[in-house]
Amino acid sequence: MKPEDAGAAFDGLPEGFQREADLGEPGRFPFTRGIYPTMYRGRRWTMRQYAGFGTAEETNRRYHFLLNQGTTGLSVAFDLPTQMGLDSDSPLAAGEVGRVGVAIDSLADMHTLLHGIDLGRISCSMTINATAPVLLALYTAVADETGVGRGELRGTVQNDILKEYLARGTYIYPVGPSLRLVSDLMAFCAAELPRWNGISVSGYHIREAGSTAAQEVAFTLANGVEYVRRALAGGIELEGFAPRISFFFAAHNDLFEEVAKFRAARRIWARLMRERFGASDRSCRLRFHTQTGGSTLTAQQHLNNVVRVAIQALAGVLGGTQSLHTNGYDEALSLPSAEAAALALRTQQILAEESGVAEWVDPLGGSFLVEHLTDRVESEALALMDRIEEMGGSAGAIPFMQEAIHRAAYRHQLEIEAGERVVVGVNRYRTEDVHEAQRGPDFRALEARQTEAVAAFRVRRDGDAVRDLLRRVRDAAASDENLLPVMIDAVKGGATLGEISEVLRGLWGTYENPR
Amino acid sequence: MKPEDAGAAFDGLPEGFQREADLGEPGRFPFTRGIYPTMYRGRRWTMRQYAGFGTAEETNRRYHFLLNQGTTGLSVAFDLPTQMGLDSDSPLAAGEVGRVGVAIDSLADMHTLLHGIDLGRISCSMTINATAPVLLALYTAVADETGVGRGELRGTVQNDILKEYLARGTYIYPVGPSLRLVSDLMAFCAAELPRWNGISVSGYHIREAGSTAAQEVAFTLANGVEYVRRALAGGIELEGFAPRISFFFAAHNDLFEEVAKFRAARRIWARLMRERFGASDRSCRLRFHTQTGGSTLTAQQHLNNVVRVAIQALAGVLGGTQSLHTNGYDEALSLPSAEAAALALRTQQILAEESGVAEWVDPLGGSFLVEHLTDRVESEALALMDRIEEMGGSAGAIPFMQEAIHRAAYRHQLEIEAGERVVVGVNRYRTEDVHEAQRGPDFRALEARQTEAVAAFRVRRDGDAVRDLLRRVRDAAASDENLLPVMIDAVKGGATLGEISEVLRGLWGTYENPR
Repeated sequence: MKPEDAGAAFDGLPEGFQREADLGEPGRFPFTRGIYPTMYRGRRWTMRQYAGFGTAEETNRRYHFLLNQGTTGLSVAFDLPTQMGLDSDSPLAAGEVGRVGVAIDSLADMHTLLHGIDLGRISCSMTINATAPVLLALYTAVADETGVGRGELRGTVQNDILKEYLARGTYIYPVGPSLRLVSDLMAFCAAELPRWNGISVSGYHIREAGSTAAQEVAFTLANGVEYVRRALAGGIELEGFAPRISFFFAAHNDLFEEVAKFRAARRIWARLMRERFGASDRSCRLRFHTQTGGSTLTAQQHLNNVVRVAIQALAGVLGGTQSLHTNGYDEALSLPSAEAAALALRTQQILAEESGVAEWVDPLGGSFLVEHLTDRVESEALALMDRIEEMGGSAGAIPFMQEAIHRAAYRHQLEIEAGERVVVGVNRYRTEDVHEAQRGPDFRALEARQTEAVAAFRVRRDGDAVRDLLRRVRDAAASDENLLPVMIDAVKGGATLGEISEVLRGLWGTYENPR
Repeated sequence: MKPEDAGAAFDGLPEGFQREADLGEPGRFPFTRGIYPTMYRGRRWTMRQYAGFGTAEETNRRYHFLLNQGTTGLSVAFDLPTQMGLDSDSPLAAGEVGRVGVAIDSLADMHTLLHGIDLGRISCSMTINATAPVLLALYTAVADETGVGRGELRGTVQNDILKEYLARGTYIYPVGPSLRLVSDLMAFCAAELPRWNGISVSGYHIREAGSTAAQEVAFTLANGVEYVRRALAGGIELEGFAPRISFFFAAHNDLFEEVAKFRAARRIWARLMRERFGASDRSCRLRFHTQTGGSTLTAQQHLNNVVRVAIQALAGVLGGTQSLHTNGYDEALSLPSAEAAALALRTQQILAEESGVAEWVDPLGGSFLVEHLTDRVESEALALMDRIEEMGGSAGAIPFMQEAIHRAAYRHQLEIEAGERVVVGVNRYRTEDVHEAQRGPDFRALEARQTEAVAAFRVRRDGDAVRDLLRRVRDAAASDENLLPVMIDAVKGGATLGEISEVLRGLWGTYENPR
C-alpha cells in the first residue's frame, strides 16, 4: 500500500525540475504556488460550512447560527428529492424529504431559506447538479424580488453532471441533454451573473467513492476539459466563462500527498488551458473549494475525527484552497450537531488565527519531498488524462473512470481489512464505544410540514399561468434557447422544481446506468 | 507582533545557504534534517504521556490504562512536595500532596508506582530536578530489588536545575551544590546506567514562562553548555556522558517557526559540541522530547484544544522529535480526565498511522520558507548565546535570561489584550461557555491516605539503621564522593525523600531568588 518512494529522504529538487517553468512565482503562471501573489495575507480563504436539513425554515436557522459563529460563506445541502427533481409531495420522495439536506420545492421555500441573509454580501454555494438550473433560477428570482442586483450575486452552483454519472449518482437525464443544461447555465452566468461560478468541477465525490489522489485530479480536470469544449461548441466565448470555472476537491489524510495534489492540479490546469485553448492567464487559474474527507471519519471514538479534520483542513490551506468546509466530528453518525458544526468552524479559525500558516505563501514550496510528490501526482494524472483523451474525452470515458475508481476503492478496502492501512479506533486501538443515542431532528414531522407547504403553495398560485409557463419551458428545451431565463419566469410564476423537472423528463427521458 | 518577514513568498533558499554544510543528510552532521538516516521509518517516536496524581496506587492505575491504550513510554509527574524534598506528612506539604503529580516518599511508594511494569522494556521519564538523585536512587533500588539489570534500564531524569532558577521555580539548594548534584547524577549514569539519559535540558518551561522560540533554543542550549562544562570539570569523560544528554522542548502554535526551531536547535548543538568540545558525531546529536504547549490551551471552548494539540504535535513530528507528550483538552481546567488523555494519545496515533507524515524524513527540508526560518531562529539564538558567553555562561546569566523571558511574556500578553494576537474563543469568537462541573479526584482523601502511609512506613523500618545511612549521605555530600550510590543504599534501608533532602538542606542551605 505504501507508495514506492515512501521513506526516501529526498535530498534535492526532482531531476529535471525547472525553477521558473515548473514553479514560477505565486500568482503567476503556472500557478503551482497559488493563484494570488500574497495568498491569505491578501484574502483569507472563505470558511464555508456545508449545511442543510429538514425545511427551509430549520436550515435558515442553522445558517444564522453559523454566521454568528464566524462562518464567512454559505453552502447549501439539498435533500435527495430536490436533487432528483421531485417535489416533496411526490410519492417517490416519501421518506427522503429533508434528510440529507434541505427540501426546496418552490420560490416560497427559497425566500424562507435565504431570509435575513444579505445576498449582496454573503456568497452562497449550492451543491446541486441535475436540477442546478432550477435552483439557480430560484436564487436569481429571490434576488430580483428582494432588490439585489444580479451583478452583486456571488456564489457557486456545482452543476457538474459528469461526476454524477461517475461517482455520485444524482443524475436525471441522458448525457447529451444534461450537458446542454450545464452549458445553458454557464452561458447565463457569463451573460447575467458576472461574479457567479457557473460550475464547480468536483473531484470530491470521485475521491469519496474511493479514487486515488491522482485519479481525483485526472478525472476532475478531464471533466473540466469536457465542459470547456461543450461551452465553446455552444458558442460561448472562452474568456467569458473560463475565469469563472471553479473546482472542488477533497482533503484526505495523507498530508503531503494532498498538498502536492492541489499544487499539481493547478499546474496541469494552467498549462492545459493555455496550450490547448489559448486561454489568458486569468482563465488558467484553478480556483478551488476543499472539503475534508467524510469517508475518512469514523463512528468509533468519534472525537478522533476532530484530529483528522484538523490535519485535512491544514492540507487544504497549505495547498492554497480558496474556500474550505471542515466536517463535524459526529458526521459519521448523523447530521452534524450544532456543537460539532461550531467546533469544525473553530478548527478553521485556529488554523487561520493561531497556527501562523496563513502568514505565508506556498509555505512548502521548494521542499524536496513536496516538489517530488507534486511531480508524481502530476505525471500519474497526466497519464490518465491521456487515456481519456484517446477515448474522445470524459463524456465517452465514463465506464473507464468508473472502473478505475472501483478498483482503487476495492484495493483500499482490502488494505484496511488486512490491517496494512491503519484506521485508529477501527482496525487498531479499538475500545468499547459507549454511544449516546444520537437525537437527530424529527424528520417525519419535518417531512409532513414540507409536504403540506408545497400543496398549500399550489393552491395559492394561478394554475393556468403555471401551465403556460411550463409549456414555455418545454418549448425552450426542445429548441436551442437558453433555459435559464425561461426557468426564472416559471419559478416566479409559481412553477415548482418537480414540475419543471417533469417537463424535461417527459421530453428527454432519463439516463440508465449501463453498469 | 508579526515577524518582519511574515507574508513574504520566499522564492529560493536563503542567501549563502550551503547545501552540504547547513543541511547535510539525515542522520549526518550537523543533523539539521534529523538524527537518524531513516527517522520514523526505522524507529517511531515514543508516545510518552506525562501523568501522575494522588498516590502511587492511583497513578499506577493510570499508567496501566495508558499502556493499554497504546502509549509506548511512561512519564512521571511528581507532586510539589516530592519536587521540593518534603515528605507528605511534612507540615509544609499540607494541601499540596498528590495535586500536580504523584506523591513519592519512600521505596514502598516507588514499588507501588511501578507495579506490574516491565522496567527492562518500558522506558520511563521522570520530571524531577532538585530531588532528581533521590528519585533515580529510588528507581534504581526498585530495579535492583526486582531483578532488572541496571544495564537494561531506559529512561530519563530531567535533572536540569538551571531552568528551575530561570523559569520553573522548584529549586532547593544554592546553585553550586545543585550543579554538583547534577554532575553526580550524570557521572553515575555514565558509570552504571548506560541506556539512561542523566539529564534532559529543558526549554519547555522557559517557553511556557513566555519566552520566544529563539530564546527557548538559546537558553536551553546555553544551559546544556554549562552542564557539559561542569561535568568535564568534575572529571567525567566527554564521550561517557555527552551522547546521553537529552533535551526537552515545547511545541507551540506557530507551526513553521516551531519546525524551524527544532531544526535550528539540532544544527547549533552539533556545531557547538564539535567546535567547542571536539565531540564525536554521536555526541553531537541533539535528541529531544516534545510536549505540546500547556499555556496555549484555553478553558473556554475546551474542545478547541484538540485542534491546537494536533497542530502542535504535528510540529514536533515534522521537526523530528524522539518522543512526544500531547496535552489533554481539559488540562486548562483540571488534571486530564481519562477520556482526554486517551484522545491526546489517539492524536499521536492518527499522526503516526493515518497522516502519512511518518513515512518521510525531514519532509519540510528544502522548503524555501522553512530553511529561511531555520536560519532566522538559529541566528537569533546564536546572538543570545554569545551574550550569555560574555557573562561567563548560563550559571552567571540567570538574571539576564529571567529578564528576557519576562519581557517577552509581557509583550505577548499585551498583544493578546490589544487583540493583535488572536486566541480563538478567548479574545475572538467568544461564546457563553457552559462548563460542566469538573469532577477531579478527592485530593483530601488521597492526601490523608498518603500521609498515613509514610507514617506507617517509618514505624516498620529500623530507625537506627536509617540514622546511620543519613549520616553517610551527609558525609558524602560534604566530600567529593558521588552521592548516588549512597542514596541508593539509604532508600533501600528505609530513608525517605524528605529526610535525605533535609540532610542536604542542613548542610548546603537553600537558594534565595534575588528578584
